[in-house]
Amino acid sequence: MPAADTQSDHQAPAAVLATPDPTAPVRTPQDRPSAAEEARTIVAATKTGTLASLSEDGTPWASMVAFATLADGRPVLMVSTLAEHGRNLEREQRASLSVVTAGEEGADPLDNGRVTLAGVAERVEGAEAEAARAAYVAAVPPAALFSTFGDFSTWVLRVDRVRWVGGYGRMDSVTTEQYLAAEPDPVLPRAAGAVRHLNDDHADALLAMARALGGHPDATSARCVRADRYGLDLRADTPAGRASVRVGFAAPLDDAQGLRAATVALARQARAAD
Amino acid sequence: MPAADTQSDHQAPAAVLATPDPTAPVRTPQDRPSAAEEARTIVAATKTGTLASLSEDGTPWASMVAFATLADGRPVLMVSTLAEHGRNLEREQRASLSVVTAGEEGADPLDNGRVTLAGVAERVEGAEAEAARAAYVAAVPPAALFSTFGDFSTWVLRVDRVRWVGGYGRMDSVTTEQYLAAEPDPVLPRAAGAVRHLNDDHADALLAMARALGGHPDATSARCVRADRYGLDLRADTPAGRASVRVGFAAPLDDAQGLRAATVALARQARAAD
Repeated sequence: MPAADTQSDHQAPAAVLATPDPTAPVRTPQDRPSAAEEARTIVAATKTGTLASLSEDGTPWASMVAFATLADGRPVLMVSTLAEHGRNLEREQRASLSVVTAGEEGADPLDNGRVTLAGVAERVEGAEAEAARAAYVAAVPPAALFSTFGDFSTWVLRVDRVRWVGGYGRMDSVTTEQYLAAEPDPVLPRAAGAVRHLNDDHADALLAMARALGGHPDATSARCVRADRYGLDLRADTPAGRASVRVGFAAPLDDAQGLRAATVALARQARAAD
Repeated sequence: MPAADTQSDHQAPAAVLATPDPTAPVRTPQDRPSAAEEARTIVAATKTGTLASLSEDGTPWASMVAFATLADGRPVLMVSTLAEHGRNLEREQRASLSVVTAGEEGADPLDNGRVTLAGVAERVEGAEAEAARAAYVAAVPPAALFSTFGDFSTWVLRVDRVRWVGGYGRMDSVTTEQYLAAEPDPVLPRAAGAVRHLNDDHADALLAMARALGGHPDATSARCVRADRYGLDLRADTPAGRASVRVGFAAPLDDAQGLRAATVALARQARAAD
């Protein structure tokens, strides 16, 4: 399931976007979450997004919504006909939902992960509506009150098309089947504290990983920028410039609790190889 | 310019949405930012939003964008034809931009202020493009690099329609003229620290304001939930329930520096009236 699909084809001098290649063998698995896994992870970790619906005058209408996610990744919306998007969906069900990862304070927002789920909103009734409403109230507690108002109705977005952007130069399209079948990453949304701890207290271990395992023996410093179930993304300073370095765990993690042991194992492996 | 336009017409039992009325005279101005001022404030304080554009297959397409704001409040976008929204704008210029205020950690996101600006995106060229690009690079520093790529172009959204939602039950539509003529509130986006300080260290003064100035002499506690150039929004606990209380400054403030003196003056006035 993991892959490394990305795409970048900016009309720019190649050197502007280049990062230094490894100068030594890379000694860990290079798996990373697939675009489908990235998309599922972003959607599962987030409770607000922006709906694009079609207004009566033909203008695409962007508006904030709270949403819940069914077990298969389809988003649930509860909208009021007092809101333009609620009236729009009654008339035209083609719609899309943009979901953006909350970035670190001060980080470049254009480097944040985000996803667009496009498809057809279906107003659900009966047992399906009960399940969707229960998921919505669990994700959006104030809905326990407003879901009883007569102007609110419950919708599930049937996802026909998924576009994931991981940040600069990392993006891909995902089929509906890939999206519905993928699992959200159990580590990524819970790793911010561990990443901070690695950078604050274990910069030496990160540098050893970049040098001994990541193919950059001439690195002079390294920071961790992300952890997921498959490994760590590092940025290393080298004489040739700043390099993106991937160090992968021996096996994918099943939960965030495994992150500490897997990182310690990488640090040991790096020091043994040094 | 200030007004108190709001609208709520949920199909719900009236008692569910009611808050207790004042039981004594209200002794301060009740002005608050107009919907146009609220909208300008949200847009001016924010650098990312979600664009709704129209995809080739007719689906409204929601996607994250960084934006800048011209002095009159029109948003500037810089988009790549590598992105679906960039290709969409080339084909169909009707579009809208949703901008959401960053809420306090843990706050109900549906109570966040947000605005949708709808209209027609115009690709700008020549001197106008230079000014727009300069505003964009100032707001989005990485654009200094990518604005030189051949796949990026600069757009200004001609705003035809504005919808502001201040949170539960506070919403209004704004004309283009009102939006372009309004000033962003100079206090609101810079008041979070002052509001925290009032709640942490001056709960007694807030309670005195709610009792002596805000029309709720039987209030038992009060918190500040917001400060703007015209005054403070308080929530007060009373025997009849939780009341929304507005205490206004003697005169609108021109900058956030004036907030401390204006609040001290309200506290003095409250204690003198007690």
